Amino acid sequence: MRYNRFLSADTQFMKASEIRELLKLVEQRNVISFAGGLPDPKLFPVDELSEIAKEVIKEMGSKALQYAPTKGVTLYRKELADFLYRNRGIRADPEDIVVTVGSQQAIDIISRTLIDPGDVVIVEEPTYLAALNAFRVRRPRFVGVPVDDNGMKVEVLEEKLKKLREEGAKIKLLYTIPIAQNPAGVTMSPDRKKRLVELAEEYDFLIVEDDVYGLLVFDPNIDTTPLTLLDKSGRVIYVGSFSKMLSPGMRLGHIVGPRELIDVFERAKQSIDLHTPSLTQYITAEALRRGVIERNLPRIREHYKAKRDAMIRVMEEKFPKSVWFTRPAGGMFLWVKLNANVDTSELLQRAIEKGVAYVPGKSFFHDYSGKDTMRLNFSYPTVEQIEKGIAILAELIREALGSS
Amino acid sequence: MRYNRFLSADTQFMKASEIRELLKLVEQRNVISFAGGLPDPKLFPVDELSEIAKEVIKEMGSKALQYAPTKGVTLYRKELADFLYRNRGIRADPEDIVVTVGSQQAIDIISRTLIDPGDVVIVEEPTYLAALNAFRVRRPRFVGVPVDDNGMKVEVLEEKLKKLREEGAKIKLLYTIPIAQNPAGVTMSPDRKKRLVELAEEYDFLIVEDDVYGLLVFDPNIDTTPLTLLDKSGRVIYVGSFSKMLSPGMRLGHIVGPRELIDVFERAKQSIDLHTPSLTQYITAEALRRGVIERNLPRIREHYKAKRDAMIRVMEEKFPKSVWFTRPAGGMFLWVKLNANVDTSELLQRAIEKGVAYVPGKSFFHDYSGKDTMRLNFSYPTVEQIEKGIAILAELIREALGSS
Repeated sequence: MRYNRFLSADTQFMKASEIRELLKLVEQRNVISFAGGLPDPKLFPVDELSEIAKEVIKEMGSKALQYAPTKGVTLYRKELADFLYRNRGIRADPEDIVVTVGSQQAIDIISRTLIDPGDVVIVEEPTYLAALNAFRVRRPRFVGVPVDDNGMKVEVLEEKLKKLREEGAKIKLLYTIPIAQNPAGVTMSPDRKKRLVELAEEYDFLIVEDDVYGLLVFDPNIDTTPLTLLDKSGRVIYVGSFSKMLSPGMRLGHIVGPRELIDVFERAKQSIDLHTPSLTQYITAEALRRGVIERNLPRIREHYKAKRDAMIRVMEEKFPKSVWFTRPAGGMFLWVKLNANVDTSELLQRAIEKGVAYVPGKSFFHDYSGKDTMRLNFSYPTVEQIEKGIAILAELIREALGSS
Repeated sequence: MRYNRFLSADTQFMKASEIRELLKLVEQRNVISFAGGLPDPKLFPVDELSEIAKEVIKEMGSKALQYAPTKGVTLYRKELADFLYRNRGIRADPEDIVVTVGSQQAIDIISRTLIDPGDVVIVEEPTYLAALNAFRVRRPRFVGVPVDDNGMKVEVLEEKLKKLREEGAKIKLLYTIPIAQNPAGVTMSPDRKKRLVELAEEYDFLIVEDDVYGLLVFDPNIDTTPLTLLDKSGRVIYVGSFSKMLSPGMRLGHIVGPRELIDVFERAKQSIDLHTPSLTQYITAEALRRGVIERNLPRIREHYKAKRDAMIRVMEEKFPKSVWFTRPAGGMFLWVKLNANVDTSELLQRAIEKGVAYVPGKSFFHDYSGKDTMRLNFSYPTVEQIEKGIAILAELIREALGSS
């Protein structure tokens, strides 16, 4: 039987993520992978979580294994609100939080409840590909704004906003990862952040701030103020997650925002999945209460810093000088632009044959441009793998540039 | 700031579930609640799960806390496939399964990927209200088919199908809970199940079979064959969950279906939440491996049977003879129809004042008819609460009927 005739029109806009398809391939072979976005599992606080899980089920099983409110377990939202205040300066009432299945679900819920077909959605070029995919299903009109070493080029944004206003276009929202961006690794400068929030006010749109790397900055003297602290009128919807700080397998994300929108998100989530699993919320609430995450963060930063340093060291040594790459102050990714007529999607097959994988940059652009770019992950591979893998990649790039 | 202008058109169709709003109210007072749909937490295998959680994190933490495939943890899908074969006779390849955040997400994913505005979606009258809400966002044309003690009236369905064919309407899918239905508690007879699958073939539509109560039948000699076993051409999409058999707080549901559709569901899930939490899948895989669920099931059935018996006993004794109610062979709910011009939504306020709560039946109808009906839950309250609460309810109903 053929099923095409049963599919909704939306399914045409549901793209399989290139990364996940790719990872399947890489897993089967013995390849050094800079492709994924996985935290280093050595950093999971296994012993502490093991004890906590045991105790939480034993002592609070009748709640931790039971249904919970759609917004999330109240106890967890309280601990989370305290954590956000201590670490990000964000004052949130627990009632202004919806707990989601990872930050991905946060983005999907925002997308479903805010975007209508044809609405203008502004994104960075490049940006997080799974956010693009979540938006795409809603058939928005994407407008891209390039990033440089200081994040989104807000002066370019302003030009585009002017044009959009002239056209009479309805600007719905702007999606940004201001700190240690995925995929580019860049961080927005304080001036640009300030100006961005002003522009949202001036041009009347919402900002979705994806802050999943906000606490993973390892260099000193980097301004990591979240946009939401600069926002005076309730235009910023803040999205976070414990995936990179504790465990992605628990899938705990959250949205913090104005109550009126939070109520809409809650209503949407009711029919999406009733609520995020209670058990992982109870476990993480207890981990927060015991300070597990805050104790672990310095270790994570130090560990990833060493890996980033190794990657940049070998790249500086071996990459052709014409190739541009970012020097991330934090996060898990680094961005490469070959500045040549080379398609990194085509190059990938050869890379995998030679024993190294990355994600071709195209998927991170709303219009699939950026064909000479690639994303490299430094959080998962070991320092040895980084050194070896980057050397292979450098050779491959030299070859490709030579023949381009 | 007002946010209405930022909301998508879909949000108009996102209804807050009456049950969940109601439960908030009931929690605040000392009310005997027949309103929720909660399993009895006494039945959670707390000690076993506590040990399993500890061991799973300790021994497999680097996987159980890490990202997992979108379809679900491979190990878990294998255990699940074995469980489905042993207990429901369903032969599923683990690749034909998508693990979801409860059966609610299963329904939402099916809804998003299959239903276009105006498509005919056939539902039982009454049916599970959160399924209605998940469908509603897609703006289908609902067609209702009443149930009686033997489940969906398939002869009425056939008449409606004929009419729809005459109109040239496109029938997309039929949603049914064949066994121990929520809310009515009724179970479809073998003849009707057989005829239903034939009609799907004849009229070319898909069946979504919600089997969350399939293993919670406590009476003997009840046919519990799932529809999917009668299906020869791949028209049945099977939805299940461990919420009622193990723990709703783990939020583990699943879709089993034809590979071509499973691939579409997987693609949708990628941008919805990447994947269902790994940790709860690893814990449940181990619980399945150790036979925790199968060992616990007879105890659950016995426990709920005693509660159902208590509820029916008091109802037979105290309810007016003109009131119709179902005698469920399993599940967690029982359905009451007052057969009078009484609106149970209006009655509820008085019921809560007198110390008892239920869910007014209207929300379980796609067209909000059935105003003289109500759903009663017997799995959560104690036998004592059931006896006391039903006596209060009987008095209230007598009063209402007297004055109607």
